Amino acid sequence: MTIKRHEPSKIYSKVVEANGFVFTAGVVADDVSKDARGQAQQILGEIDRLLKLAGTDKTKVVSATIWVTDIRHRDLMNEAWNAWTGGENLPGRACIEAKLADPRMLVEIAVVAAK
Amino acid sequence: MTIKRHEPSKIYSKVVEANGFVFTAGVVADDVSKDARGQAQQILGEIDRLLKLAGTDKTKVVSATIWVTDIRHRDLMNEAWNAWTGGENLPGRACIEAKLADPRMLVEIAVVAAK
Amino acid sequence: MTIKRHEPSKIYSKVVEANGFVFTAGVVADDVSKDARGQAQQILGEIDRLLKLAGTDKTKVVSATIWVTDIRHRDLMNEAWNAWTGGENLPGRACIEAKLADPRMLVEIAVVAAK
Repeated sequence: MTIKRHEPSKIYSKVVEANGFVFTAGVVADDVSKDARGQAQQILGEIDRLLKLAGTDKTKVVSATIWVTDIRHRDLMNEAWNAWTGGENLPGRACIEAKLADPRMLVEIAVVAAK
Repeated sequence: MTIKRHEPSKIYSKVVEANGFVFTAGVVADDVSKDARGQAQQILGEIDRLLKLAGTDKTKVVSATIWVTDIRHRDLMNEAWNAWTGGENLPGRACIEAKLADPRMLVEIAVVAAK
Repeated sequence: MTIKRHEPSKIYSKVVEANGFVFTAGVVADDVSKDARGQAQQILGEIDRLLKLAGTDKTKVVSATIWVTDIRHRDLMNEAWNAWTGGENLPGRACIEAKLADPRMLVEIAVVAAK
């Protein structure tokens, strides 16, 4: 069993590989001035990058957890989500409301992928 | 490595198999007029169906995440939970409060099972 | 495939092993009179104990989910977190705000480890 950790900060690793699975951290947007769609677009782009670092990609995501700071942001977030998935290789998903580390953050997404 | 996705909607798959594990989406009740116990009963029945689709069952659940819209719904939800588990083959579990996609939804449950 | 469940209560198992992974329940502090740092210290000590029961340890954690009842508790919780990790072998992590089972509980942590 080997664990590979990518881009550790002081607190967490951005993505970790072990035993045929890849776990991303909860990803938030860099530019928190954007709306929920724009933040989700940024987040999903970053998730693409993290999955690639770990040797997998969005077609192999098996589970996603999405936190939105107001459940009414769900529709805008879903526009970015649906553009990202293209309606294919869809993971299991839960989308719930939660406050995040900074009030300007509207969306946070963590995924588990197979590889 | 093979990923099997069951019952994809436009947004997510209801249950996904990969590498010896099965991941359900967050499941909510069809009949949101029921109380937290009734909604949890419906959800756990649906989870039985999804686990069967993916070739496993409730005796192999390893982890469950339960969101309730008011933490005071926990006791009613637990009545349905305890009836479902029968006190056997209990997974790890976290139960936290969160608003869900529709204010009438009182409970959402996602599980990970082995197979 | 074998599943090992450790320390089942009436509702959940404290830690479960399957297919090379270990899943803890959401762990809360025994002494809820402590602040967020003290509660997180207790929780992480208990997680050490649970991981050992399941044949692994904190150097093999791949993913952590942390719920705090007020996102402003995050800094105090992180002090305990950083002392626990020592800045090494960092998992993916998401930290979000959620109400927990008892209003005196300030922090809840669940982890997934490889073994």
